[in-house]
Amino acid sequence: MKKVAISLGDPNGIGLELALKSHSTVAKLCKPIYCIDQNTLNKATKQLNHPVPKDFKIFGKYNKVSINPGVVSQSAGEFSYQSFLTAINLAKEKKVDAICTLPIHKESWAKAGIDYVGHTDMLRDIFQKDAIMMLGCEKMFVALFTEHIPLKKVPKALKVQKITSFLLDFQNSLQLNEPVGVLGLNPHAGDNGVLGDEEKKIIKAIKKANKKLESNIFEGPLVPDIAFTKNSRKSYKYFVAMYHDQGLAPLKALYFDESINVSLNLPILRTSVDHGTAFDIAYKKDNKLSNTSYINAIKMAVT
Amino acid sequence: MKKVAISLGDPNGIGLELALKSHSTVAKLCKPIYCIDQNTLNKATKQLNHPVPKDFKIFGKYNKVSINPGVVSQSAGEFSYQSFLTAINLAKEKKVDAICTLPIHKESWAKAGIDYVGHTDMLRDIFQKDAIMMLGCEKMFVALFTEHIPLKKVPKALKVQKITSFLLDFQNSLQLNEPVGVLGLNPHAGDNGVLGDEEKKIIKAIKKANKKLESNIFEGPLVPDIAFTKNSRKSYKYFVAMYHDQGLAPLKALYFDESINVSLNLPILRTSVDHGTAFDIAYKKDNKLSNTSYINAIKMAVT
Repeated sequence: MKKVAISLGDPNGIGLELALKSHSTVAKLCKPIYCIDQNTLNKATKQLNHPVPKDFKIFGKYNKVSINPGVVSQSAGEFSYQSFLTAINLAKEKKVDAICTLPIHKESWAKAGIDYVGHTDMLRDIFQKDAIMMLGCEKMFVALFTEHIPLKKVPKALKVQKITSFLLDFQNSLQLNEPVGVLGLNPHAGDNGVLGDEEKKIIKAIKKANKKLESNIFEGPLVPDIAFTKNSRKSYKYFVAMYHDQGLAPLKALYFDESINVSLNLPILRTSVDHGTAFDIAYKKDNKLSNTSYINAIKMAVT
Repeated sequence: MKKVAISLGDPNGIGLELALKSHSTVAKLCKPIYCIDQNTLNKATKQLNHPVPKDFKIFGKYNKVSINPGVVSQSAGEFSYQSFLTAINLAKEKKVDAICTLPIHKESWAKAGIDYVGHTDMLRDIFQKDAIMMLGCEKMFVALFTEHIPLKKVPKALKVQKITSFLLDFQNSLQLNEPVGVLGLNPHAGDNGVLGDEEKKIIKAIKKANKKLESNIFEGPLVPDIAFTKNSRKSYKYFVAMYHDQGLAPLKALYFDESINVSLNLPILRTSVDHGTAFDIAYKKDNKLSNTSYINAIKMAVT
């Protein structure tokens, strides 16, 4: 059975509860190693009134943290950073096969002086590689060519060479044997240039990437508002979106609860839930926590 | 029973087949007046091997047109333009309560020297009003603040006064008693300015519109990739999208077959199917035509 290091995320969010309540399911899918210390674990289990499962294997050293549900704090930021770093190191040292991350809180990281925008950003820095952010579930995956940049900067970010490299990195990571739909940028994919001409660059990049791969795996540019119809999804399970909301709005409209986040093009495999810390329901009784995204992330980590 | 003028769209597309095969259903919902002449109707019914229904009321004078399935032509462009104009005039003269349009082909219009981008554009010109394009179905509607412009032009098109007027026109047309979700422009709706700041304008416009309407009907800016999740759709049935694909990609991912197009803020009510001429299947045997969008458009026309 594969080993997966699990970083617990922000201790004031839902990460710990998810990990504890889902442990029996997770333990059937992999050998989990939880990146947390006994002291913090005890505090959390007490607040949650949930016993520590017997085979709950923990690892790593951490600063002291007090648990205050739903609160942004420096110590919470430090803990979630250390938990993530511990998981990364376990993967770097090949002590685990993959890592799965629970949600951190950006503001807690900022309070702790950690200036990464998030997990993927930190992975890029540590490995000095252009990590690719892909989100989705078994039915549909979307990789994002641009992510957390203002919409007005998207059109200029589309450069033939960058898109080509992205497509090559994407396919080198996944080794797919099926067509991948690459989206256009403009309404109606530009309507032959009448509604924008960035599609010319996308076409060039698709051609270059396919030539290099000696296979016409990348198809497009697809008309963005038609790409995700039921019919179109019969032709494609994998999509490359030019910007954040182009891919994620349709994905989340269809499969929000099931979706996960995968970092591609890195020396390690990292999967993640596709939701945040949910401070509003953290540590609350009867909060009806859904663990679908978490379990799907574990499944993806062991494939 | 309300009267609805139906323009047949491009005679080389699926419009005529839809109208003929759906007539018995349509006739239960309204009194349809089909904007076509006997000669063209006979040609079409012959090609379709479908009898003309007895109570198929036609109206208007048209140039001669030959039917060539799936072919772009000047005479087809002229016919579909005349059919639409006839329907508009019937509505202007209050001889019908609403009009419902079947798909035209842009290139046929161009060949006929008609330089409108489409139906909505022509309606704007005829009535000299800022028609609002809204698409959707009973479960969800999306109104588009910008439509057929390149993505790079969208951020600059967001001006406080223009958005405010749009929101007021929207509500004056629909007289809703429920909240309307107004989308942000940037990923995470700008994340407090870190990922773009156009949301400031949207906030100002929402405040101004709500103040004028003396009701907090408009809510937002919503985070675009979360706005259309199942949960968020419990809070909103109506959305205002800042650009074409932001609203239409999620809508079509969820409800492509059912969706229709409505023109708001005009002296007449116009509804339309939300699909094209489907030249690839026009006049073909066993083409499994779906009339869901057409029937929904008729239903909307008579509400």
